[in-house]
Amino acid sequence: SINTDRLLNRLQELGRIGRDTDNKLTRLAASDTDKAGRDLFVTWMKESGLEVYIDRIGNIFGIWYGPENRNEAPIMIGSHIDTVINAGIFDGCYGVLSGLEVINTLQEAGFIPSRPIAVAAFTNEEGVRYTPDMMGSLVFAGGLSVEDALATVGADGTLLGEELERIGYAGTEDPGFLKPHAYIELHIEQGPILEKMGFPIGAVENLQGISWQRITIEGVANHAGTTPTDMRRDAGLAAARVITYLRDRANDSNGQTVATVGTIDFKPNAINVIPSLATFTVDLRDPYEQRLQQEERALANYLKELAVSEEVSITTEQLVRFQPVTFDETIVKLVEQAANQRGLQSKRMTSGAGHDAQMMARVCPTAMIFVPSIDGISHNPKEYTKDTDLEDGANVLLDVVSNLSGN
Amino acid sequence: SINTDRLLNRLQELGRIGRDTDNKLTRLAASDTDKAGRDLFVTWMKESGLEVYIDRIGNIFGIWYGPENRNEAPIMIGSHIDTVINAGIFDGCYGVLSGLEVINTLQEAGFIPSRPIAVAAFTNEEGVRYTPDMMGSLVFAGGLSVEDALATVGADGTLLGEELERIGYAGTEDPGFLKPHAYIELHIEQGPILEKMGFPIGAVENLQGISWQRITIEGVANHAGTTPTDMRRDAGLAAARVITYLRDRANDSNGQTVATVGTIDFKPNAINVIPSLATFTVDLRDPYEQRLQQEERALANYLKELAVSEEVSITTEQLVRFQPVTFDETIVKLVEQAANQRGLQSKRMTSGAGHDAQMMARVCPTAMIFVPSIDGISHNPKEYTKDTDLEDGANVLLDVVSNLSGN
Ligand SMILES: NC(=O)NCCC(=O)O
Ligand SMILES: NC(=O)NCCC(=O)O
Repeated sequence: SINTDRLLNRLQELGRIGRDTDNKLTRLAASDTDKAGRDLFVTWMKESGLEVYIDRIGNIFGIWYGPENRNEAPIMIGSHIDTVINAGIFDGCYGVLSGLEVINTLQEAGFIPSRPIAVAAFTNEEGVRYTPDMMGSLVFAGGLSVEDALATVGADGTLLGEELERIGYAGTEDPGFLKPHAYIELHIEQGPILEKMGFPIGAVENLQGISWQRITIEGVANHAGTTPTDMRRDAGLAAARVITYLRDRANDSNGQTVATVGTIDFKPNAINVIPSLATFTVDLRDPYEQRLQQEERALANYLKELAVSEEVSITTEQLVRFQPVTFDETIVKLVEQAANQRGLQSKRMTSGAGHDAQMMARVCPTAMIFVPSIDGISHNPKEYTKDTDLEDGANVLLDVVSNLSGN
Repeated sequence: SINTDRLLNRLQELGRIGRDTDNKLTRLAASDTDKAGRDLFVTWMKESGLEVYIDRIGNIFGIWYGPENRNEAPIMIGSHIDTVINAGIFDGCYGVLSGLEVINTLQEAGFIPSRPIAVAAFTNEEGVRYTPDMMGSLVFAGGLSVEDALATVGADGTLLGEELERIGYAGTEDPGFLKPHAYIELHIEQGPILEKMGFPIGAVENLQGISWQRITIEGVANHAGTTPTDMRRDAGLAAARVITYLRDRANDSNGQTVATVGTIDFKPNAINVIPSLATFTVDLRDPYEQRLQQEERALANYLKELAVSEEVSITTEQLVRFQPVTFDETIVKLVEQAANQRGLQSKRMTSGAGHDAQMMARVCPTAMIFVPSIDGISHNPKEYTKDTDLEDGANVLLDVVSNLSGN
């Protein structure tokens, strides 16, 4: 079993890096605080005798080679150490540090791996500073060219390529230089299901497809007092109809597809002026591509009807579109078995959030392990997972990895 | 009849004051451009032999006394010359300059007024820089103390009192120093009704009550991908339900009460985060106080139900509340008669917008005359009223005023 204290201490230590004067934790990708976090992680890897490689998009890999396995494809354990603004300490870091902990535990146990074991920290998983999220793993998996990714302009006007140079993490390896035999990611659930249903372990069998659109509705600005109701072409009202439509549809379908409108903007945004313009985003997710497409079509049809009934014009822009991912059944079963052998009940489940595993599934057999998030909270300082759950998750990871890299 | 060219030329000349480099017209209350507009208006009044008075809130009055009427209460014609940002040239200015034109016409005709005739330009009708709107007339009518009004902090952080001093329009008269016998305001409709129904003159018999509220809904921010639909406490969805509720109710009531949500803001306003906070404004208007109260109560009840069904907490803040105003039936009839005698069809109607007349009705018999606004557009450079309609409106005003101030 893993060394729980070491894992928890490292989580705390990394979680202290990137605190502002209000003690808020923020390590945006390729920032100074991200550099400090990376440096600490690299130090730990080197102390553990790992060979450290950085690829051109800044992904960090630490590889533990056994005496005779240099030509074998590695088992890769990964996640990310960049964070959102005002983050918790577990999202991403738990997976990366558990990967290192698994290697340390196997080293100390005298384990002879038949395959190298690699731990990876991917660049810019959160996508807060540079869009899209999961960028490092997407580039690694060949879904985005390294040149395009490095040329990304950040929310703060910086270039990712220049920032990686600046912090010393513009590496030389071509993304994809490693061809993993399998990829496993341990992560906090970031949702309420495991805690609510009382399972310590989630055996994640698939990951939802993600469709992000920006919708712009154009009506006619007019005086709130003098314009009769039946003569209004109210962009704000039309936006509200879309929001309630999406929820009513989610309710009717028992919430299989989840839909979120997280951002909105009215113009001219004056109390006594009917909005001429409403801009908002729609985040649609479903584990099944067909159903996701069906919901996208239903929304498109609804927008067509709405444009006619409210006399507005509507345009949509696709911002992100990732198909659902089905994880490798063999690895998912290994997760279930490992949990079972440790007397832990596991639940087969879907990942609601996007993760690096989603991209890695394009290049090798992949699965994820979830542990409970108290109240389902993440991306928030209140993000919390109990020590025993953190320990259990890392031990299940240990068993799966030793199984995959054993003889 | 009035001198149409003089009126139109003055409208154009005043309309050139306050243009920026893009030729956009903006004369916010007590600004440098407002000062320039005021100076021009005062010059015209002095050239016309009027006695000019400024009161402590900066309202400007030009009074034409007849040979033997100094002790009579004046007939007051008024409106405002401040504008919104990127305004048209008619809103407010048309009423003020028509007042001056009526005086000039009567002067030239050798008319002996039994009552003084005053033209008034009230401070800060638009309320863009300082809240509330109709401030100068509200103070004049005793609805707001001059001290409180002068202490108003503007959207730009300035103090109205200091700005009036700065531009030289902090007068010495106490607001209300004049007690008008009657008040008449000629204004563009700012709505589509007269143009759509083909009437050149609106005999405005009442003015809607205006209720402005800010509503704040607090839910719980959570991950868009991992939070099941039935566990969401989505402040943005709840806001959208209020917006559609208000419209559906307006439709059901044949749109007697008009309701507008012109501003909205979500927090944290991130594409993949369920909004924890939604803030928006509601502008409710109805010509009948009972019905306005009924709609306010219905909204309050709806918010209570919504707080339970969506598991959010909702607070409301009243920003503005003006009761509906019924104008003076005698003056409204005079407007109808004057139109009729000039062969102009008039329509009895409600003012959808707030106007200085709304405040003046508290202190003397009051009515308004409307002329058509093409496409109902105002607060916009496209604001437009045809020359013949401007002429007809001013002539109806002339007839009503000469009737009220004749022998
Ligand atoms: N894990 C995670 O929060 N990823 C961000 C992408 C998303 O799922 O919205
Ligand atoms: N006339 C006018 O536009 N007044 C502004 C106040 C309002 O009616 O919203």
